[in-house]
Amino acid sequence: MKVSTRISNMQFSPIRKLAPYANESKSKGIHVYHLNIGQPDIKTPDCFLDGVNSYKESVLKYTASQGMDCLLDSFIKYYKSWNINFEKDELLITNGGSEAIQFALMATCDVGDEVIIPEPFYTNYNGFSEVAGVNVVSFSTKAEEGFHLPKKEEIVSKITPKTKALLVSNPGNPTGVVYTYEEMRMLADIAKENNLFLIADEVYREFVYDNLKYTSAMYLEDVKDRVILIDSISKRYSACGARIGLVASKNKELIHEILKLCQSRLCVPTVEQIAAANLINTPESYFKEVKAEYENRRNILFEGLENIPGVICKKPTGAFYIVVKLPVDNAEKFAKWMLQDFNYENKTVMVAPAEGFYATDGLGKNEIRISYCLKDEDLKEAMKILKIAIEKYNSVN
Amino acid sequence: MKVSTRISNMQFSPIRKLAPYANESKSKGIHVYHLNIGQPDIKTPDCFLDGVNSYKESVLKYTASQGMDCLLDSFIKYYKSWNINFEKDELLITNGGSEAIQFALMATCDVGDEVIIPEPFYTNYNGFSEVAGVNVVSFSTKAEEGFHLPKKEEIVSKITPKTKALLVSNPGNPTGVVYTYEEMRMLADIAKENNLFLIADEVYREFVYDNLKYTSAMYLEDVKDRVILIDSISKRYSACGARIGLVASKNKELIHEILKLCQSRLCVPTVEQIAAANLINTPESYFKEVKAEYENRRNILFEGLENIPGVICKKPTGAFYIVVKLPVDNAEKFAKWMLQDFNYENKTVMVAPAEGFYATDGLGKNEIRISYCLKDEDLKEAMKILKIAIEKYNSVN
Repeated sequence: MKVSTRISNMQFSPIRKLAPYANESKSKGIHVYHLNIGQPDIKTPDCFLDGVNSYKESVLKYTASQGMDCLLDSFIKYYKSWNINFEKDELLITNGGSEAIQFALMATCDVGDEVIIPEPFYTNYNGFSEVAGVNVVSFSTKAEEGFHLPKKEEIVSKITPKTKALLVSNPGNPTGVVYTYEEMRMLADIAKENNLFLIADEVYREFVYDNLKYTSAMYLEDVKDRVILIDSISKRYSACGARIGLVASKNKELIHEILKLCQSRLCVPTVEQIAAANLINTPESYFKEVKAEYENRRNILFEGLENIPGVICKKPTGAFYIVVKLPVDNAEKFAKWMLQDFNYENKTVMVAPAEGFYATDGLGKNEIRISYCLKDEDLKEAMKILKIAIEKYNSVN
Repeated sequence: MKVSTRISNMQFSPIRKLAPYANESKSKGIHVYHLNIGQPDIKTPDCFLDGVNSYKESVLKYTASQGMDCLLDSFIKYYKSWNINFEKDELLITNGGSEAIQFALMATCDVGDEVIIPEPFYTNYNGFSEVAGVNVVSFSTKAEEGFHLPKKEEIVSKITPKTKALLVSNPGNPTGVVYTYEEMRMLADIAKENNLFLIADEVYREFVYDNLKYTSAMYLEDVKDRVILIDSISKRYSACGARIGLVASKNKELIHEILKLCQSRLCVPTVEQIAAANLINTPESYFKEVKAEYENRRNILFEGLENIPGVICKKPTGAFYIVVKLPVDNAEKFAKWMLQDFNYENKTVMVAPAEGFYATDGLGKNEIRISYCLKDEDLKEAMKILKIAIEKYNSVN
């Protein structure tokens, strides 16, 4: 029985590729420090659980395809606090940011169309594009430049008659970059001058460090009909398992069209929506503490990395990731070796080889993505182990 | 800003098309009996809510892309009670039956391929096919024949080099048909002889009346590598708002490929999965009572319809729908008229015009789908009103 070509061409998740080796390592009694996954270890606000426990209906019915009013209202309130004003017909609740991106691609691109994405990018953008039959065209950003955007001409050179949209994550996964106002302005200009949509994945909006100014795509008034906002409660509230996201735009006609996709899958789960709506009651102190925690971890991580000879990276200023160029021949080989053939006092480290975050073949071969979703002491230990591992690997390979 | 052709070609849900007229009617103080939606009014089993309230984790994490073990185990246990034996790597949890169908189409068909579906069919099959870029090719089934399948040659005549799968719902939405063993055997033979997949939507499996024998596609051993089972907890447990479904097959390679689609959207919500897993503890008496309730409603409905001159339908034997040919010129016009221009003692009825359940233009113009998700007294009253409405409509139109 022959499956479809499109599915046999799809990749399995590169982030999970090494999971069997990690399990093998653990079964030998080795402690694995997980720097490979973007799963926060931060406590989910209590009000989420309060929302879950408040559900008492006797019949668990379908709800509105666009999302429940209480949740739409809570998002509107949340955005107001960021000086972004939405009306109800400009938002749609989705099954996580994942579905929001999927819908945005399907609504802007036909099969065979192109979307331009700076690489390295969140590896699942490949999957969403495959599912939508859309081709990813990428331009490179570099570790040496902190993964900031290249010159305008470089990006524009990637545009073809089939290009329909730009897709960026800001703050960035996997790079941790936070685009400047000038960079966002440049993207807006490119979109405007070339009649493109700008799909802005802002799920890490709260995670901006060093008091940097954050420019949401929604602040660029003159391109508001082109901007499609992607959002999620996953990282903001450490609620990854809720699968609650949002696609929004001031382009009401676009949102109205995307409603067809929402109707097609009927609606999003009820209990999760009610619980998510309650998250608007999360105290301001929660965000302050979480941000301070991650900023501190970022510092520890960077200090540890700076201490490893041959490592190339700039200090990331957002999200909770960094892409690092290592002084090794092949990052995937090295990552596997750390799990299969190495341990330091019965401990080792798991990282995500960065090749899977690039569209262009050959790039990222000696790069890794590190997620700093571990507490301070563990991060320090992990950096120490990484340094020793690199030395050992290069001495035996 | 131009949206994609694929999305502008998609239909809004035909079931919801008349909702504004219903709201208008209600705002005038008229009571609307809803026979248009497949939303059960049955109480969701307590153990679902128990499952919801049992959730106490401090961090709401991502879970496994294939679904949580507790839920996979509960499905395996459920199927055992139907003499269907699954192993864990033959099942994937999905966001409702909706996502299961979407995944099945994407995994079996490439863009431009064809899926054969008997019409009238569940209108959202159109949406899933559009999203997948797959063309629906249909063959007709008739009210006069209780919407049973036509001769084999009729179905086979629809096969082209682009056909990859058959898609059926059994018991059927919108028809309420329950296919005989011979019909299922015929579909299996067609699939086998023409190298097709058989996507079997069995979400109404419990709703089979008159002690009829039910033949799941999973009982057809010789085609087990071709059968893709679609399931859901929505109707079985009146848990439509949970959005928990399943795609399963004895074809492990196929399921392994579909895992890529699951990984692409990461996972299904945690709380819903835990609650859904607990539904395995629903007492047998629940199913007996629910089935008896619906069987009784089916009888009341059919009695009421038989009492209306000119109505053509056969007694449905499954699910909770019936497609009825009415003695009116145009069912959508009539349905609108019942909401906008008619009432009997300040009461009226809302039905779903059946044209939206057909792929072939021109079919179903004087047909409606009725869902019998109302309690006895309301159904009797609704049938009385429907009779009066038809008489009145024909006298003024």
